Amino acid sequence: MQYFPPALENLVEQFARLPGIGTKTAQRLAFFVMNLPENEAKAFADAIVGARQSVTYCPVCQNLTEGDGPCAICASKRRDQGTICVVADPKDVIAMERAGEYTGVYHVLHGVISPMSHMGPDDIRSQELVRRVAAGGVNEVIMATNPDTEGETTAMYLSRLLAPFGVKVTRLAYGIPVGSHLEYADEATLMRALEGRREFR
Amino acid sequence: MQYFPPALENLVEQFARLPGIGTKTAQRLAFFVMNLPENEAKAFADAIVGARQSVTYCPVCQNLTEGDGPCAICASKRRDQGTICVVADPKDVIAMERAGEYTGVYHVLHGVISPMSHMGPDDIRSQELVRRVAAGGVNEVIMATNPDTEGETTAMYLSRLLAPFGVKVTRLAYGIPVGSHLEYADEATLMRALEGRREFR
Repeated sequence: MQYFPPALENLVEQFARLPGIGTKTAQRLAFFVMNLPENEAKAFADAIVGARQSVTYCPVCQNLTEGDGPCAICASKRRDQGTICVVADPKDVIAMERAGEYTGVYHVLHGVISPMSHMGPDDIRSQELVRRVAAGGVNEVIMATNPDTEGETTAMYLSRLLAPFGVKVTRLAYGIPVGSHLEYADEATLMRALEGRREFR
Repeated sequence: MQYFPPALENLVEQFARLPGIGTKTAQRLAFFVMNLPENEAKAFADAIVGARQSVTYCPVCQNLTEGDGPCAICASKRRDQGTICVVADPKDVIAMERAGEYTGVYHVLHGVISPMSHMGPDDIRSQELVRRVAAGGVNEVIMATNPDTEGETTAMYLSRLLAPFGVKVTRLAYGIPVGSHLEYADEATLMRALEGRREFR
């Protein structure tokens, strides 16, 4: 027996496909959308199609952008095109930009190497990075993947891939987060912080 | 500085408007949708507009349906049209139907009286119920709102509203849930279970 009207059932199913959304939540969301004014429901639907259609990848750094040309950062004359910061995700670009210190450009991998999730080197934008470096004009590649096993593996793999080009490959510093307490830092972080200690100047 | 492309930012905002969805979750959902194949993103968008446009309320019981006529339950000759089960929500109809015992029809209030949420008697489908009962042919109205303050208040209010018509108004039984343990039952439930005790037959 069909309990909800088919169109509503269909919407519930669509919501339930989203990551982290179960059936109960999907029902709640579908009810909410169904009770929206018609123009707002239309705006939501348009936003989905619009994002899917107009959002593209920057041909240079692979970050999300709109249109065919390079993204705003890659096109900017004020950014150092010779320094590439390699991140796993567009959200990481935002995090770096929020810090406001970095003046180079980025390379977004869209994932990390992870055998557990069946992500191999060819599932991330690694060849695009190699081509950028091979094209010349790059002084330094900064690996800024997350400091976990998968991020480390990815950074290690890419640094070996870039070795033949003689480019300088660096890694973000590990250490105690600013504003935190030493007593709450885990051993691995403390060890890395000790290893990476610097002289007062 | 704009970090995400505007179309993606727009989609994130649309998701963030949904109940219980924060910015981080909205970003995750937007990324997921953006990476769907184009036809699937289109199907999602169509589901939203479709649900909004084609889902209507049954003119008899106010439950969700499609098209102009009465819903499948109200149109069924196998259901007892003289017994109306009053519920707060379409989901409650599903719960009742799942039990499979009930052969009457429903009346969906779409809410309960709740001064805290600014829901008065006219914000729920109470007049529609009165008109149904006034039209005659109704033997019994079963109040099946939730056993909480608001559900109780609503049931009480409606039973007074229906009193002039001399129709039998009943309430679902309170008691220990089947399969649970007595020691975990709260005092109010235990008291109600004791009050509602029945003779072995």
